[in-house]
Amino acid sequence: MKTQTILMPLDMHLHLRDGVMLENVAPLTAYSFSGAIVMPNLVPPVKTLEDVKAYRARIMAAVPNDYFEPYMTLFYQNYDKAFLESVADELTAIKLYPAGITTNSEGGVSSFDIEEMRATLQAMSDLDIPLCVHGETDGFVMDREAEFMTIYELLASNFPNLKIIMEHITTKAAVDMLDKFENLYATITVHHLILTLDDVVGGMMKPHLFCKPIAKRPEDLDALLTVALEAHPKVMFGSDSAPHPQHKKESCGCAAGVFTAPIALQLLCEIFEQYDKLGNLQAFVSDNAQNIYGICPEFKEVTLEKRPFIVPENYFGVVPMYAGETLNWAIESVE
Amino acid sequence: MKTQTILMPLDMHLHLRDGVMLENVAPLTAYSFSGAIVMPNLVPPVKTLEDVKAYRARIMAAVPNDYFEPYMTLFYQNYDKAFLESVADELTAIKLYPAGITTNSEGGVSSFDIEEMRATLQAMSDLDIPLCVHGETDGFVMDREAEFMTIYELLASNFPNLKIIMEHITTKAAVDMLDKFENLYATITVHHLILTLDDVVGGMMKPHLFCKPIAKRPEDLDALLTVALEAHPKVMFGSDSAPHPQHKKESCGCAAGVFTAPIALQLLCEIFEQYDKLGNLQAFVSDNAQNIYGICPEFKEVTLEKRPFIVPENYFGVVPMYAGETLNWAIESVE
Repeated sequence: MKTQTILMPLDMHLHLRDGVMLENVAPLTAYSFSGAIVMPNLVPPVKTLEDVKAYRARIMAAVPNDYFEPYMTLFYQNYDKAFLESVADELTAIKLYPAGITTNSEGGVSSFDIEEMRATLQAMSDLDIPLCVHGETDGFVMDREAEFMTIYELLASNFPNLKIIMEHITTKAAVDMLDKFENLYATITVHHLILTLDDVVGGMMKPHLFCKPIAKRPEDLDALLTVALEAHPKVMFGSDSAPHPQHKKESCGCAAGVFTAPIALQLLCEIFEQYDKLGNLQAFVSDNAQNIYGICPEFKEVTLEKRPFIVPENYFGVVPMYAGETLNWAIESVE
Repeated sequence: MKTQTILMPLDMHLHLRDGVMLENVAPLTAYSFSGAIVMPNLVPPVKTLEDVKAYRARIMAAVPNDYFEPYMTLFYQNYDKAFLESVADELTAIKLYPAGITTNSEGGVSSFDIEEMRATLQAMSDLDIPLCVHGETDGFVMDREAEFMTIYELLASNFPNLKIIMEHITTKAAVDMLDKFENLYATITVHHLILTLDDVVGGMMKPHLFCKPIAKRPEDLDALLTVALEAHPKVMFGSDSAPHPQHKKESCGCAAGVFTAPIALQLLCEIFEQYDKLGNLQAFVSDNAQNIYGICPEFKEVTLEKRPFIVPENYFGVVPMYAGETLNWAIESVE
């Protein structure tokens, strides 16, 4: 039987939420990933050293063993350098949200005045703390990411030594930025390697495929696939797996987020095999992230087998992508 | 109190469905409209003289009085001229669906080979039976209507005396066609005078605003508003009101259709008043349709009043647009 081994898989953009949801979903990621960048958009957001330590402790309490590393993040606001120095050892990155752009982002940045942000961003640059960015304006939904490129240019050119991660990119416009600025990197989700807006609203409307940024046009999908499949060295896997209870998805107003954590590696095998690029999967799902972030994850070896895997209808009340459908790859063992 | 009177309102694109749904929704339209073009996409579709007569009889049985005229349509397929002559008196139009493009359209046209369609379309032209068209390709969801313009061009130029109605148009591309071909007309829904894709998936995902064709870009909305508000003589109101039970909208795969029949006139008053164009509403919602189709509807005078109207949460299990919200206009009387 055909198998594929992945060493130290990393999910460089993950939502674990908190409370019971955290307890339910964290073990699913901890099972098959060595580590994950954990997003700070809780209510209230993660903003202090105490927040980071306490959230990390809750995550570690929720996962069944110590072979998983939660790479912690702070919610971006202006912080002074002394504070950043004091927390740098507990942090892997700081996540910037434009205000109100997605789930629990109300306290984000409301105007991109570089001078107002300069002290914080320069300190991050000096301390080598990467800036992760949800890059969308509040414009028309299909244009939001492309419109944000001018802000990426502003950030990248003003802080040339700051590592800036364009999170969950969905457009050719963002892909094109990778080769324009040395300090711009990107994460790509697995669902954005599969979906266009057609899958979300082209036939029936599919709430479980609704996310932010929304899936875009066929030419955008092509551009994302190109850099993911070649494992462009500035591109990393980040699932943006975002659990919501079923009733918040299937209702008169559906929350944004696709839940992929427990099926991400299986789906990635399927996509990379389909394009005969399985040889690049290791770089996309681990090596590139290690190089970009300079991290050394705990050893974990995940072996996948090419055999049918029926995706569960739900995990603790959260409906995953492809619920009830059959994938071609299954996780065989984790060591 | 400010009032607005509309004489003989007409809904030139309406889905009444069948059975219990028909019995529930038909009276809502019959209450405030003099007549409506009734779409033939039942299961199975309306294709014979017997189908038309029987469906018309079921509609008339469902409405509480005789002050409502259902303008009947056939589902387009190739029909011979003798048949069309025999049914012409029972029909107002024939509705063409590309195969599989929307609800119950599986038996529609799968390739637009003009020569294969010529005999039927020429007979319709000779008999002055208008052709109503759902104008979408099976391409990317945001491009489907614009891509269909080449087919409208083909139809309009090959059959210059055939009245062709571009149904429920949603794009600037379709608006621009109105002045290019003398024999192209259009219906516009009330929801497409309000929504862009932002309203459907830009914040929360809104299943009750999901329809086909999907709401498009801001510049498309502007183009639609321009011709509707000026009551361009080739443009008519057609609600495309499409009832689905709540559980088919709020689920893991949501059916397409916005239910506006009972709130359409109130909403139209609101929009036309907002742009100071109430003087053009009569033409948009009745006079233009009378001229284009050459129909003389039963007398009905609907008076609306500017006062708060709370939209019901549902009508017989069908959730309307703006359920539970307050509109600024209410129907005061119907005579």
